[in-house]
Amino acid sequence: MSKYAVGVDYGTLSGRALLIETKTGRELASSVYEYPHGVMDRSLPDGTPLGQDWALQHPQDYLDVLKNTIPDVLKLAGVDAADVIGIGIDFTACTVLPTLADGTPLCFLPEYQNRPHAYVKLWKHHAAQKKANQLNAIAASREEHWLQNYGGKISSEWAIPKIWQILEEDPQLYKAMDRFIEAADWIVWQLCGKETRNSCTAGYKEMWNKRTGFPSDSFFAALDPRMEHVIDEKFSRDITPLGQRAGFLTAQAAALTGLQEGTAVAVGNVDAHVCVPAVGIDGPGKLLAIMGTSTCHILMGTAEKQVPGMCGVVEDGVMPGYFGYEAGQSCVGDHFAWFIENCLPQAYFLEAEKQGKNIHAYLREKAAGMRPGESGLVALDWWNGNRSVLVDADLTGVILGMTLRTRPEEIYRALIEATAYGTRMIVENYRHNGVPVDEFIASGGISQKDPMMMQIYADVLNMPIRIADSLQGPALGAAMFGAVAAGAAAGGYDDIFEAARAIGKVKNVCYMPVPENAAIYDRLFREYRELHDYFGRGGNDIMKRLKQLKKEL
Amino acid sequence: MSKYAVGVDYGTLSGRALLIETKTGRELASSVYEYPHGVMDRSLPDGTPLGQDWALQHPQDYLDVLKNTIPDVLKLAGVDAADVIGIGIDFTACTVLPTLADGTPLCFLPEYQNRPHAYVKLWKHHAAQKKANQLNAIAASREEHWLQNYGGKISSEWAIPKIWQILEEDPQLYKAMDRFIEAADWIVWQLCGKETRNSCTAGYKEMWNKRTGFPSDSFFAALDPRMEHVIDEKFSRDITPLGQRAGFLTAQAAALTGLQEGTAVAVGNVDAHVCVPAVGIDGPGKLLAIMGTSTCHILMGTAEKQVPGMCGVVEDGVMPGYFGYEAGQSCVGDHFAWFIENCLPQAYFLEAEKQGKNIHAYLREKAAGMRPGESGLVALDWWNGNRSVLVDADLTGVILGMTLRTRPEEIYRALIEATAYGTRMIVENYRHNGVPVDEFIASGGISQKDPMMMQIYADVLNMPIRIADSLQGPALGAAMFGAVAAGAAAGGYDDIFEAARAIGKVKNVCYMPVPENAAIYDRLFREYRELHDYFGRGGNDIMKRLKQLKKEL
Repeated sequence: MSKYAVGVDYGTLSGRALLIETKTGRELASSVYEYPHGVMDRSLPDGTPLGQDWALQHPQDYLDVLKNTIPDVLKLAGVDAADVIGIGIDFTACTVLPTLADGTPLCFLPEYQNRPHAYVKLWKHHAAQKKANQLNAIAASREEHWLQNYGGKISSEWAIPKIWQILEEDPQLYKAMDRFIEAADWIVWQLCGKETRNSCTAGYKEMWNKRTGFPSDSFFAALDPRMEHVIDEKFSRDITPLGQRAGFLTAQAAALTGLQEGTAVAVGNVDAHVCVPAVGIDGPGKLLAIMGTSTCHILMGTAEKQVPGMCGVVEDGVMPGYFGYEAGQSCVGDHFAWFIENCLPQAYFLEAEKQGKNIHAYLREKAAGMRPGESGLVALDWWNGNRSVLVDADLTGVILGMTLRTRPEEIYRALIEATAYGTRMIVENYRHNGVPVDEFIASGGISQKDPMMMQIYADVLNMPIRIADSLQGPALGAAMFGAVAAGAAAGGYDDIFEAARAIGKVKNVCYMPVPENAAIYDRLFREYRELHDYFGRGGNDIMKRLKQLKKEL
Repeated sequence: MSKYAVGVDYGTLSGRALLIETKTGRELASSVYEYPHGVMDRSLPDGTPLGQDWALQHPQDYLDVLKNTIPDVLKLAGVDAADVIGIGIDFTACTVLPTLADGTPLCFLPEYQNRPHAYVKLWKHHAAQKKANQLNAIAASREEHWLQNYGGKISSEWAIPKIWQILEEDPQLYKAMDRFIEAADWIVWQLCGKETRNSCTAGYKEMWNKRTGFPSDSFFAALDPRMEHVIDEKFSRDITPLGQRAGFLTAQAAALTGLQEGTAVAVGNVDAHVCVPAVGIDGPGKLLAIMGTSTCHILMGTAEKQVPGMCGVVEDGVMPGYFGYEAGQSCVGDHFAWFIENCLPQAYFLEAEKQGKNIHAYLREKAAGMRPGESGLVALDWWNGNRSVLVDADLTGVILGMTLRTRPEEIYRALIEATAYGTRMIVENYRHNGVPVDEFIASGGISQKDPMMMQIYADVLNMPIRIADSLQGPALGAAMFGAVAAGAAAGGYDDIFEAARAIGKVKNVCYMPVPENAAIYDRLFREYRELHDYFGRGGNDIMKRLKQLKKEL
């Protein structure tokens, strides 16, 4: 008798559910639901305007994902809810919201509906950069021991700068908030009726450490006396390791999802980290790059090294027994979407239409015909700041080398190459700091859809690249954790290693670097690195000054 | 009895004739003829491919301008050819062609039709950069006295690097060429049947000096022994000052143009310099910027100063009795055309169409609503290299400051601002080197059509800007020189000062700087200058290395 598990993957613009057969990993059905409110970066639903660098979401959209996609996959697969043994979810990390003690989001309350700070702050909400800068300065001056575990810098995307921004800009709302919680954990709370905080976001995004706990109250008091007890007042010290069961589906959640009451619910996970078992990784030195809107790089090592500019090192943060390292690039798919929306001329759309081609496919075809270095362009991929290795959201994009003969496909390819150089900076930074990177595996939408880009990455990195054998990497990983929450006796697995070995997988295809291209990209990467260091490490702080001027206006 | 003069202005893409009444300067009719061959930058008419940075034209197009436009203006104005007393012409400078001793262009001969070097090299043909670099190195090492009159550097656009490129790449054609001549002088030759070389292009573009003549034969021999006698073999030492009469229309030219045989023909002039009397300038300190495809800046001073990075100082080079200074920006209108062709998204075209607006007008409207500094963008306007003050065709464009919220109109405005900063670099460079700039007058298409851009220039320069009161500045100037060639007795003028005072003019409108904007632009200009010096003065030669890599491929 087959058993099944559901994984729900929450992305930046939509949520998707995937139903798998637990023994084989076979993907039976998936269903996507786009968030009706999308990303709110200019105004609230009632028109209240938002400031520069804001990015909010509406938590009702997340519940609507459950309501729409889970019944849909059951129906599509013709599976009885009684045979679904577990559910796991993953979410974008640093997507956080303020709630009451019972989990009600503040933005659900009429009195807060016009208050921007009552909503979910999406991972790419960058308006807390000032607080992040202050936090970093204070932590550095106090020589906080945990700082080097995060590359020496906390990102403005993380929970503490975000809650500090709320305190500063809307202290009344700060007071009204009983909990400040990762959306991943909030959804798990809605499913099993019990607040359960996962070790992954706590470790990577909230400075929690398995051995030493959170930063001290005196550190938080140094930020602002009102925040001295912020962990006990708004967060929690009760952290549950990945791979555990958070609880069982409540009657209310069963009614919402169409699953049975009592179905096992896994601890919440992060969209990147959850992919690692899905590609069969069960050891160190194998870097997984999850390439979508942004890229997350997950790597395991056998020792705790302090690597400058990484996003974090967390013991058991990916799989038990290893140190999990995370790095990231905050603008990858977004980069190309921006280009197509804002820079691609009409003639290209018309020609693509005439040829009956998708505009991305048409552009890729033009860009694929070019040789490395042919365009004379080099770009810095900082349209959304730089996460690793500079950890600075105030950096901005650059394109250099244009002439009157520069064509759109050349700019498009230069933006792709820029993200590949950014990835190489991360890989070289790990190696330079004693964390080996021997293999490169790519997951996420781009890895599946864009062979040209994967070849460019192979050439720029001068490494073979293997590809996840699932169109739904995170949702598959989440479903695997759902099967682990149910346990082997119920038809699932007893630990995530067992699940990874049984049903994790990569494709047979492998992108091999072309030596001739790799040699040219070595030269171009040197140019990238020189610009990277000049604009990113204080040679010329023009980007910060221009942002400052914008803010003054 | 009214008398008339014709001015013919040869631009980059078309030629235009203007018929004026000599006494009043009244413009009676004008006619434009677009070059059928346009700019050949990818292949010859027969498909022979061209290299990187090439830009050729076909001289037949220039003759067709005469044949089409002059009869047209006579007809439009209802003027009898017998009442037309003179004709003047102006041309883009550094547009040069190889001919036989009788003036026949080599590309007219069947045996050379597939030879790229047989055609006209347009001013923006930049493929002789290597020769320009060598020439500059040799001239500097020999401490050639004339070098500092050209800002210390010769541009790849000028005649000597271009003819040297021919010698190197097609020595047989070099040998077959009897004359290498500016297109301006070639057209005058076609009109009056006599080779006549003007002092303006000789002085500004061929290193000729009124007092010391051309560089020495030993200098040319140092470039290449075969070039020792290049001036006597391919050029001429017989240079005629501006404002003189070159001769009278031949029967053949009369048949071509519909004018009378014997009509006075002025010495050829340059499209920028010829505009000076047309706006009534008759003294020093008044900078004229002719803004079109590129911008030329003409200024007179009372002393010969050696200003780094200018294009040249030539005694009597603009008007007798003063030292004429020239500077230039090689990418202005071209910049915006590139942007609209390569970067403007479909949605903008569709919206402009819906609103019944020209795409430029639609974009300007969007860009005009923005405040200085609001976009956070700064660009380097080097899509076509940098003429002044860096004199380096190997420099390329940069845009810095993009985020995922950057919109096309912001990039468009940043490109406009970049050209304004480039102009300010030129103005500050003159002042810093003891050549006063007290007034700023703009001429050319952009000055007439784009009030937003003129206001940005006024704000960036922090100077009032006055505008030429003619839609056809160069053609008007050329016609004025035609009237001077005929002389006062025939119904024209005896010298160009008399003509400038009588019929030169500016509009009543004046763009005044807005102090608040000027203060912000002071800050942005500092950022521009820092990037300008970093990428342009050796801080990081990435642009040259990328171009080098392109060439290697």
